[in-house]
Amino acid sequence: MENFYKEVEKFYLSKGWGLRMGFGKRPAIVVIDLFKACLDPSSPLGSTELDKVVENAVKVLDIGRDSKVPIFFTSISYDAEGSEAFGPRQKKQAHRMKSKDTWARGASAVELDPRLNRRPDEIFMHKQKPSIFWGTPFISYLIGRQIDTLIILGCSTSGCIRASASDAHDYNFYTVVVREAVGERCQMAHESNLIDIDLRYADVISMNETIAYLKNLKQTTGN
Amino acid sequence: MENFYKEVEKFYLSKGWGLRMGFGKRPAIVVIDLFKACLDPSSPLGSTELDKVVENAVKVLDIGRDSKVPIFFTSISYDAEGSEAFGPRQKKQAHRMKSKDTWARGASAVELDPRLNRRPDEIFMHKQKPSIFWGTPFISYLIGRQIDTLIILGCSTSGCIRASASDAHDYNFYTVVVREAVGERCQMAHESNLIDIDLRYADVISMNETIAYLKNLKQTTGN
Amino acid sequence: MENFYKEVEKFYLSKGWGLRMGFGKRPAIVVIDLFKACLDPSSPLGSTELDKVVENAVKVLDIGRDSKVPIFFTSISYDAEGSEAFGPRQKKQAHRMKSKDTWARGASAVELDPRLNRRPDEIFMHKQKPSIFWGTPFISYLIGRQIDTLIILGCSTSGCIRASASDAHDYNFYTVVVREAVGERCQMAHESNLIDIDLRYADVISMNETIAYLKNLKQTTGN
Amino acid sequence: MENFYKEVEKFYLSKGWGLRMGFGKRPAIVVIDLFKACLDPSSPLGSTELDKVVENAVKVLDIGRDSKVPIFFTSISYDAEGSEAFGPRQKKQAHRMKSKDTWARGASAVELDPRLNRRPDEIFMHKQKPSIFWGTPFISYLIGRQIDTLIILGCSTSGCIRASASDAHDYNFYTVVVREAVGERCQMAHESNLIDIDLRYADVISMNETIAYLKNLKQTTGN
Repeated sequence: MENFYKEVEKFYLSKGWGLRMGFGKRPAIVVIDLFKACLDPSSPLGSTELDKVVENAVKVLDIGRDSKVPIFFTSISYDAEGSEAFGPRQKKQAHRMKSKDTWARGASAVELDPRLNRRPDEIFMHKQKPSIFWGTPFISYLIGRQIDTLIILGCSTSGCIRASASDAHDYNFYTVVVREAVGERCQMAHESNLIDIDLRYADVISMNETIAYLKNLKQTTGN
Repeated sequence: MENFYKEVEKFYLSKGWGLRMGFGKRPAIVVIDLFKACLDPSSPLGSTELDKVVENAVKVLDIGRDSKVPIFFTSISYDAEGSEAFGPRQKKQAHRMKSKDTWARGASAVELDPRLNRRPDEIFMHKQKPSIFWGTPFISYLIGRQIDTLIILGCSTSGCIRASASDAHDYNFYTVVVREAVGERCQMAHESNLIDIDLRYADVISMNETIAYLKNLKQTTGN
Repeated sequence: MENFYKEVEKFYLSKGWGLRMGFGKRPAIVVIDLFKACLDPSSPLGSTELDKVVENAVKVLDIGRDSKVPIFFTSISYDAEGSEAFGPRQKKQAHRMKSKDTWARGASAVELDPRLNRRPDEIFMHKQKPSIFWGTPFISYLIGRQIDTLIILGCSTSGCIRASASDAHDYNFYTVVVREAVGERCQMAHESNLIDIDLRYADVISMNETIAYLKNLKQTTGN
Repeated sequence: MENFYKEVEKFYLSKGWGLRMGFGKRPAIVVIDLFKACLDPSSPLGSTELDKVVENAVKVLDIGRDSKVPIFFTSISYDAEGSEAFGPRQKKQAHRMKSKDTWARGASAVELDPRLNRRPDEIFMHKQKPSIFWGTPFISYLIGRQIDTLIILGCSTSGCIRASASDAHDYNFYTVVVREAVGERCQMAHESNLIDIDLRYADVISMNETIAYLKNLKQTTGN
């Protein structure tokens, strides 16, 4: 069943889409929205599928830290009173917005999964929209470190991963999505969106290839 | 076959996603990338499927003009020398970038389809990225007119329509995608992306419902 | 001495600059950076001059709240570890950055002046750059409320007030800076920047005129 | 007379502001708004003072080209019908907006001064706002080239130079304004704004220091 979307991929590849960008020389790793609500099946955001994604993200982070690659984390949160969520967007997403426990800044539900083991000098951003760039100072963190490559982990593939990859591509970063370290609530949406992302915005590559790149980076730069 | 993605829709609806935003009071219509290359099957961008989309867009535009709704058009173009396309993005999209005829500003291929019959006071933007907002002054045109609703037409569903709808939603506009007036090179990508858009970013509604809204707007405001 | 810059004003007015925009119909009030460090003369950010500015801001806020105008506040803060401040910007501003007490999120110094009496449903943003728009979701709060007019209070005139007014103008909002409710560490910088702002970006008007507008708004809409 | 604002500088320096950022390793040069209307004293935009600025800009460009530094140019333009200028902004700037000859895209007045001798592969952007970043794809051109330093030339100091320097600083670029290669319609506005810029956003340095840096860059990289 997971191959249904291969037809789209085949069609677009035949038109010349989906080429490889490759890696640049100064990567950063971003871990999108691996906060507790997303790992809680009882939440409207939640999934039973993401434990493996967290474990794989941790593997990539371990190598990244060893190679001194800057690491960034996001969660989604709003003020508890609902003023920040007010407007048309809220009408589309009332299922989520109305649950203050799910989204309120400071609530346990918006904290990162503890397995990620964020270090104090790794930046953590509260975002409100799918893309890590939207309404955050993220771009200035990247430029201030002369980053040219974004390695994207986290969830969900059809939402925040795709939006962040699309924006990163538009900013003109080498953009990489690590197949085994991104996830979704729904396998079919996961597979189809990965193919769209790979055809258009980012190289969707394996965890092994990513880890090899990060290890080699350490050897090259002697970090 | 076109219903394969209904499974995703069903799953997300059961989680409370995909609510209706409805329309606001001051709409604008945007016609995304109905330029000649996109209607030319021999182009890497082209499709055989979009004639009906153009015809439907024209129907919506006719009513919109009658109700004095501001209308905006986009095309995609780059400088002929390739300096604007330079960078990692280009590597992903070399199939398109290398074809100067397809993209060069001033070339026939980046002109709007003449059936759209753009009027001189309807703004036409050359964009370079999927979203109509990215790297353009579009947001200032909307705010200067106190627009609260974006009605999106054009192509392609999995690329520029989705990216524009996602951004419009993030900016907090009432966002509407007109089902019969958006299109794709590939039917499966069209259907799955429409469902993702409808679950997350915009109300995907029929042309008839859109036209009824635009007509009623005229009666209400006496434009 | 405070009139030295009138020469610039005279010159630009003779060229046709500095016209009035007037008010729109749906204002918001923004209070820029009236946090404790800015009112502490011993801080590199501090000033002895801002007490009157706070008092005047409170007067405008009182009327604004009575007329149900949305109100937004900002402070400036960074993570305590310094990761968010890293980069070229930090080199320009090391005097400020190195003082963790001044900037660390959560520190007393970045809290709002208590006289402002922020209500829980009034949005408070931690920004990092001069403009209230830069790296914040502010624009989506405005669009979601169909705001067309920004009334700007706070400090400092030559920094965050000017940058916020310039951005508001670029977004195409009616932009108003309230003369007696904005301030600076340095009178000469205050006066010259107010004139630049008035010539280019925003109407610099009196507190009385602002209050009259806000009161009239209540009568008109029956809020 | 030109020293009147030194008092502000002295005050802010005593508070620890105005430090040097220095240069990074990969510069770009931007030439802001040296288009014909700005050099025409009969235009509301015009000045008699800018010939020397153009000449100095040409000197910097010559060395920059020799060192293979990417170069970008801007002009300001709107559609001839006035749709792009519509809104509150226009009311502030009616003196300029109403003059279609001054601003219409395609008019001679918005062409670059021919002495700049732009080469076909040097990107030219039509912007509408003071900052080169606002509503343009500029940031993606810089990231695609891994630029870390912006060297700013052109006019006017109190408008587009200051706004562009402020944005460049916020994005976290090393930001340099070349004293003899930027200009204004009004000397007093020029001097005071240069000091504000130097205290806050960019290093304001001499043409000689800039040229020495650009020459050394060539020797270092063997470009």
